[in-house]
Amino acid sequence: MNRSRALAAGTRGFIVAVGGDGKAARKAAPILRRFAELCGGSRAHIAILSAGSDEEDFGDRYERAFRDLGVNRVSAFNFENRTDCERARDDSLGGVDGVFLIGSDPARLAETLSATPVAQQIGRLNAKGTHVAGVSAGAAFLPRQMIVAGKSGTTPRADIVELAPGLCLIDKLVIDQHFRHQDRLGRMLMALTYNPDAIGIGLDEDTAAFIGPDQKLQVVGTGGITVVDTSRLQHSAIHPDRRHAPVSMIGLHLDILVEGNAYDMSAHLASIGH
Amino acid sequence: MNRSRALAAGTRGFIVAVGGDGKAARKAAPILRRFAELCGGSRAHIAILSAGSDEEDFGDRYERAFRDLGVNRVSAFNFENRTDCERARDDSLGGVDGVFLIGSDPARLAETLSATPVAQQIGRLNAKGTHVAGVSAGAAFLPRQMIVAGKSGTTPRADIVELAPGLCLIDKLVIDQHFRHQDRLGRMLMALTYNPDAIGIGLDEDTAAFIGPDQKLQVVGTGGITVVDTSRLQHSAIHPDRRHAPVSMIGLHLDILVEGNAYDMSAHLASIGH
Repeated sequence: MNRSRALAAGTRGFIVAVGGDGKAARKAAPILRRFAELCGGSRAHIAILSAGSDEEDFGDRYERAFRDLGVNRVSAFNFENRTDCERARDDSLGGVDGVFLIGSDPARLAETLSATPVAQQIGRLNAKGTHVAGVSAGAAFLPRQMIVAGKSGTTPRADIVELAPGLCLIDKLVIDQHFRHQDRLGRMLMALTYNPDAIGIGLDEDTAAFIGPDQKLQVVGTGGITVVDTSRLQHSAIHPDRRHAPVSMIGLHLDILVEGNAYDMSAHLASIGH
Repeated sequence: MNRSRALAAGTRGFIVAVGGDGKAARKAAPILRRFAELCGGSRAHIAILSAGSDEEDFGDRYERAFRDLGVNRVSAFNFENRTDCERARDDSLGGVDGVFLIGSDPARLAETLSATPVAQQIGRLNAKGTHVAGVSAGAAFLPRQMIVAGKSGTTPRADIVELAPGLCLIDKLVIDQHFRHQDRLGRMLMALTYNPDAIGIGLDEDTAAFIGPDQKLQVVGTGGITVVDTSRLQHSAIHPDRRHAPVSMIGLHLDILVEGNAYDMSAHLASIGH
């Protein structure tokens, strides 16, 4: 999974969705190491980008972690509000090998970053080969569509999820995080009802999906990734009035993937890996 | 779904798993009505059976509800402990059309009832056409194998579930309840890893699975039933030492069923119903 191979397989950089931070930076180290290697290891220049976050030390922690991994250059970009993002220069991220987007709230990320020159720049860079990772809310924000908020529960209901546009680096994908602990299957199923061409991935903490330009996803980390595939769905029926009524969904496919497992997003096919 | 049709399709009575009680008896009324009709309506004799339960008014509530539905005869059997069950006469449930098993804790049900003359009697009666319903822990207790306890979470882990033998009225089935609210997918997946020939059904509150002698399941109630089918599982791997490690499972099938939907347990096939 080195950079030259990635570029050979397609033009865009990797998209890396990192499941919320389990507080112990030690556990996330293998994920950060893999991202750093992807970006060129000791020769890499990684931009840590936060937008609308009030947790500044969150960014410091990742900055330190990447430096400890021997990354040559780590730059921190802290966009406090939308005006900051609007005023940023078109080439402010120029020359970086990787963008590492952190965030604690998907809604704050959207209102600060969406459709600004910074967001457009990330899109252009990723399309040309720069790798982009998002952690926690930053992960949810990467695709075309994101889950902003929702209620807990296994059963899908129309009122269980709130959706909004994301950064749009990748379509046909919905990402949810803190999946193991927060009972989020229902809201994922509901999000997929509205995005029937998408695959849903639920990330446990300290677990990441590395999605190559060939649309192949690899799992790194200590937890699991729940892959929900609705491509063979035979039936779903949202009640027109009763938003809280359960929604019938027949024909869902589910895989629980752990480190080393892979998923081909084009073929909708999971594999054990090597 | 009247009694004569049920008997024509096979010999055993219906097995009815009722998802935990949402406190509002009003919501459960359609389920109780369907069970009463199955048992013969106004001509029916229904036994409400509790074992090892400290919630006596729980039984009273169902007794009253069945009487309100016009059921001719409702008898309450409250087995406080194992000795009560051991001493019960072999024909103590003789002549009933339906047994309605209530319980608040699966472990208490098992230690009070398992392998006693009462349990054996229920098995014999059901095999000959008497309908048996279980609510909440009583539902989990109906099949060959039951989930006694477990931890919450979406991702399966070896240490997430505790299993024990159930009443064994039906095999190839694992029932879990309070499914919508208590994040129990992980423990269900783990239970199915150990019972690979079984279908898993997760019951929301106020929702019931009516399983006919033809192995066809019908959904009644206001919530959903999550059906997990591992019959096409391609891979699972439990770590021999790390009991808390996530377990990879590739090839799971999932259906979310609501009232009117059906599931053919022999064919592993969900349908919308009429």
